[in-house]
Amino acid sequence: MYSFKNDYSEGAHPSIIRAITDTNMLQTGGYGEDHYTEEAIQLLKNKIGLEALDIHFFVGGTQTNLTAISAFLRPHEAVISVESGHVCVHETGAIEATGHKIIAMPGENGKLTIADIENALIYHADEHMVKPKLVYISNSTEVGSIYLKSELVALYDYCQAHDLLLFLDGARLGSALTSSANDITLNDLANYTDAFYIGATKNGALFGEALIISNLALGKDFRYHIKQKGALLAKGRLLALQFIELFKDNLFFDLSQHANDMATILRDGIKDAGYEFLSEAPSNQIFPIFPEHIVLKLEENYAFYRWCENEKGVAIRLITSWATLEDEVHGFIKTLKTLK
Amino acid sequence: MYSFKNDYSEGAHPSIIRAITDTNMLQTGGYGEDHYTEEAIQLLKNKIGLEALDIHFFVGGTQTNLTAISAFLRPHEAVISVESGHVCVHETGAIEATGHKIIAMPGENGKLTIADIENALIYHADEHMVKPKLVYISNSTEVGSIYLKSELVALYDYCQAHDLLLFLDGARLGSALTSSANDITLNDLANYTDAFYIGATKNGALFGEALIISNLALGKDFRYHIKQKGALLAKGRLLALQFIELFKDNLFFDLSQHANDMATILRDGIKDAGYEFLSEAPSNQIFPIFPEHIVLKLEENYAFYRWCENEKGVAIRLITSWATLEDEVHGFIKTLKTLK
Amino acid sequence: MYSFKNDYSEGAHPSIIRAITDTNMLQTGGYGEDHYTEEAIQLLKNKIGLEALDIHFFVGGTQTNLTAISAFLRPHEAVISVESGHVCVHETGAIEATGHKIIAMPGENGKLTIADIENALIYHADEHMVKPKLVYISNSTEVGSIYLKSELVALYDYCQAHDLLLFLDGARLGSALTSSANDITLNDLANYTDAFYIGATKNGALFGEALIISNLALGKDFRYHIKQKGALLAKGRLLALQFIELFKDNLFFDLSQHANDMATILRDGIKDAGYEFLSEAPSNQIFPIFPEHIVLKLEENYAFYRWCENEKGVAIRLITSWATLEDEVHGFIKTLKTLK
Amino acid sequence: MYSFKNDYSEGAHPSIIRAITDTNMLQTGGYGEDHYTEEAIQLLKNKIGLEALDIHFFVGGTQTNLTAISAFLRPHEAVISVESGHVCVHETGAIEATGHKIIAMPGENGKLTIADIENALIYHADEHMVKPKLVYISNSTEVGSIYLKSELVALYDYCQAHDLLLFLDGARLGSALTSSANDITLNDLANYTDAFYIGATKNGALFGEALIISNLALGKDFRYHIKQKGALLAKGRLLALQFIELFKDNLFFDLSQHANDMATILRDGIKDAGYEFLSEAPSNQIFPIFPEHIVLKLEENYAFYRWCENEKGVAIRLITSWATLEDEVHGFIKTLKTLK
Repeated sequence: MYSFKNDYSEGAHPSIIRAITDTNMLQTGGYGEDHYTEEAIQLLKNKIGLEALDIHFFVGGTQTNLTAISAFLRPHEAVISVESGHVCVHETGAIEATGHKIIAMPGENGKLTIADIENALIYHADEHMVKPKLVYISNSTEVGSIYLKSELVALYDYCQAHDLLLFLDGARLGSALTSSANDITLNDLANYTDAFYIGATKNGALFGEALIISNLALGKDFRYHIKQKGALLAKGRLLALQFIELFKDNLFFDLSQHANDMATILRDGIKDAGYEFLSEAPSNQIFPIFPEHIVLKLEENYAFYRWCENEKGVAIRLITSWATLEDEVHGFIKTLKTLK
Repeated sequence: MYSFKNDYSEGAHPSIIRAITDTNMLQTGGYGEDHYTEEAIQLLKNKIGLEALDIHFFVGGTQTNLTAISAFLRPHEAVISVESGHVCVHETGAIEATGHKIIAMPGENGKLTIADIENALIYHADEHMVKPKLVYISNSTEVGSIYLKSELVALYDYCQAHDLLLFLDGARLGSALTSSANDITLNDLANYTDAFYIGATKNGALFGEALIISNLALGKDFRYHIKQKGALLAKGRLLALQFIELFKDNLFFDLSQHANDMATILRDGIKDAGYEFLSEAPSNQIFPIFPEHIVLKLEENYAFYRWCENEKGVAIRLITSWATLEDEVHGFIKTLKTLK
Repeated sequence: MYSFKNDYSEGAHPSIIRAITDTNMLQTGGYGEDHYTEEAIQLLKNKIGLEALDIHFFVGGTQTNLTAISAFLRPHEAVISVESGHVCVHETGAIEATGHKIIAMPGENGKLTIADIENALIYHADEHMVKPKLVYISNSTEVGSIYLKSELVALYDYCQAHDLLLFLDGARLGSALTSSANDITLNDLANYTDAFYIGATKNGALFGEALIISNLALGKDFRYHIKQKGALLAKGRLLALQFIELFKDNLFFDLSQHANDMATILRDGIKDAGYEFLSEAPSNQIFPIFPEHIVLKLEENYAFYRWCENEKGVAIRLITSWATLEDEVHGFIKTLKTLK
Repeated sequence: MYSFKNDYSEGAHPSIIRAITDTNMLQTGGYGEDHYTEEAIQLLKNKIGLEALDIHFFVGGTQTNLTAISAFLRPHEAVISVESGHVCVHETGAIEATGHKIIAMPGENGKLTIADIENALIYHADEHMVKPKLVYISNSTEVGSIYLKSELVALYDYCQAHDLLLFLDGARLGSALTSSANDITLNDLANYTDAFYIGATKNGALFGEALIISNLALGKDFRYHIKQKGALLAKGRLLALQFIELFKDNLFFDLSQHANDMATILRDGIKDAGYEFLSEAPSNQIFPIFPEHIVLKLEENYAFYRWCENEKGVAIRLITSWATLEDEVHGFIKTLKTLK
């Protein structure tokens, strides 16, 4: 049984394991007050090409989202997200638990549009309703789509013009940025969001998300918020070490590229076998649609999620990662082509 | 410069690093739904000697405290803690951020007494005040003292008689249970608390706390709370692997024993050199009092916290751990004896 | 300019003013610990026909909703409401501010259906999502529709079968219960909800909502919650006095009947003048649709809300109340009939 | 049985009842959007002698405190209060329920000192602890003492110098400002606090507190917060009408003066009868100490709270108000003098 269920099924890239092992018995300061953390932050600033950034490391994505969003908002302010947004659905009400409503908008192919934001603003007109303040987007999105630079810039400009913050969830940012359809850089992200994060849990690390705050006013006292939410890792260097390995050369992007390449093989093979897809998804998540009996057969050898059903059949979600074995990908296509 | 500042300055015991390395490329389910997690839970049940337990793993202590306490309480219910309790001071208001007041009581030598609880109950008499509901204690405490079994049982009996929950923070539980003064077992903890946790971050793991809920009603829907607080680790097996290494044999206790032994060498050597201590602390934290000029000299070669000052001098905190080098401990005493 | 904007534009029924005046200089206990409060509670129990009820008085509806719902739910539990539900939109995120997500469902004509609840349950399947726990309905609804007894009973039975709580917002309950389409009694409400409230702010009182908790387990320590939310009125007897006046005879229902009668005159007159309505609304809110130029003319003499626009024109909301003057209602119709 | 238990035992001054009665059937906008509210706000600005103020009306004190404090603070920021402060003890954790810790300091005679604030700042030194941000004081205090202008100015200057906000709870402000020991004006309060409120519930109104925000940045979007906390009264003019009556002439101060005069008669009479007091309390709360058998006798005819016991006897709390009858006050002294 080979799994395409997730991009967090395996551990970490071997060079990360090696870095953790090599530094294991060194004494360092706790809670991110160590020189590895300093080094990782500087490395990220260099990669992004900006010095004026406030950078913090987290263990997981929900933790990052809830800490950042609750730190950025006043009690009456709300989040605008697409209905399929991770914070909107799959975080057990983590944002609401910090007191903030999420305004869910329909979006298009998993992406938030300016029309969505505009409608949210029009609807929430006075103090009897929450005040929309933070626009949440994911790149790649929860359905595998990605934002183009023109879309990102347009969203940011709209936010700036309407006193809104733009926050980008980058749990799968590597896959977005190495997609063949992508034209966004890390530098763009820092310039055209107020804050975003770079996800490593799903791209080569044991765990780790790097929050990049470019709207520096939002970073004030930020470590207080991390600690209060239980998100300040005692052995903080573990996070730093992983980001150093991923960003000291090009490892982070190489790993994403592999994930995307594996998805491309799957996508092409499935298309070639005559099947359609639920959505345009040029990243490491694809949603092919198969007849029920094909899905049942595939489930004998492969693990994946059934996403939804429509008149064409069952859409399943296949996720690839830095660790996906090319042989298994070819095996999947081969198996599929034998099924009818 | 050798550090006695903390018991989380180094990484993990080598066997833990090995276990993580060995299983690195295996595919497992995410978020603790894997067989390592099952195995670790069963192992802990065996060690504790009880099957009817609800066990969950967390990355850190503040996270454990805030998730458990907010899950256990209704909005108007409050925590009773000693003033020096970790939740009371050093978690940036994490408990209050979930909506609950902490009632701080003086305690004795860092330990909560029945008189403290009684006074809190007498004072909080009606609905114009919060309702005390959960008694929070740490073992070992924040000042290195430990609870005796008779004290634990008395607290639990009092709580049972007054409809209170007893929760024990075991961030440094290993050191408490292997102290020469200890007479409490893991089994006792499960029997005489409603929930407690076993801290591994400060005893051999990269990170990890195992929450043991023996009052099963409190465990209902518990994974929802973990997720909501951003505390559900994607690669959950990392937590399980570490607890398996620590508890499959006696490693957890061996490591604590080493920490305590190192503290004993320090304690005896300091006593022998003619100095006094701020408190009775039979675990891995000791608080010797030195004149300012001695502290200044020690600071040239050793890192540690200045705790407080009194008429006798400066009390410093020395912490030992599973990783503390015996040579450094002897070196410290030797250095001390040369100073005047 | 006569206003049909709201049912809280005027003060209170004269008999309420008289009761407040007559008892003004008496000394009573504070915070609802007075004999008037006892009397009002007993009176409501008698009217409802049940003794086993936990009854509390509030100043306003949002206050009642947020206090009750946050008291009833654990942190991971969510509310199911129609999209147009008051808690969902018009309370500035009051429920989310207490930590709970509201799951918005489409409903039918402002009413929640069993299919809505079922869909919410199916979608929220595991601990990565909130757990739906409390079903929130309003009667009459925010668009003037009302629940039939068969609908209420079916919702309650469904909730009982699925471990859900049913909570009914009765801000405009009087108008619902005296609607010609109604077949629900106060006794039914106590039997077929876990809790509901009787709104008086919009039906003859200066202010006041009576929360009736029939699922007694939910009432435990309830006064703590009221106090914590800042909702425990110091001179609590003011609330009690008003409910005594409204319920010692039939005043509450007489006042609602008047509001409904006024709405009926408007409804019939508007129909007679050849206009349609946005929705079936047999209570004190009606939503006629007029061409823009008619609305503009009406706005010269009458205050009301523009609700929405569609291809037929502009739907406006007309609200009547216990205080609505019959002459003004006839005047409105007369004016309308002169306009083209 | 005559009650000295509280200053909210009776209703409202007759002129307030009259104003409510006289305007009862007028139609006005809801939620404070009416011309009475405008008028009341302007009246208060005139009385205070400042135009640049943000003024909002609330029904009760706990509501005012929790709404203002939670609106003013970011999640990691805490309140500094004396241990006897109303928010610290008698509001059922209302502030903590909005997420903020209250740091309790000893104070002197119920008043917070600069040393208290300084100690709180020294102790809360880094991001592992909450960040003290808002200093909460009450005037008169919970034990009847009052602040002098020099003390207020010194506190404010200290707060300004340390980036702290100064908030003054004026639930019993009238009594403080008309105390013979007072040298503070309403204008001073606006100049030397960031926000304060004028309590009317305990000084002639049915209910009502006027929050005066002079640090205008704190007032941004303030009505959202009021609504979210369920504190926006539907018939908002009821609050305005009461403040108009109290402040259009000098009624507010006349009523407080009466309360203080009655307390003075009690104080002098009790002193004259040879008894001592628990504290210096020059306002409408006094705390005489009597032997137990005297208290028992007094309890036969008078209602009051037993406050605490010490070696001299039982300290009781006697509260006078605008409604306290002078005959009853003389009667109390007469009765006392007959007792031995």
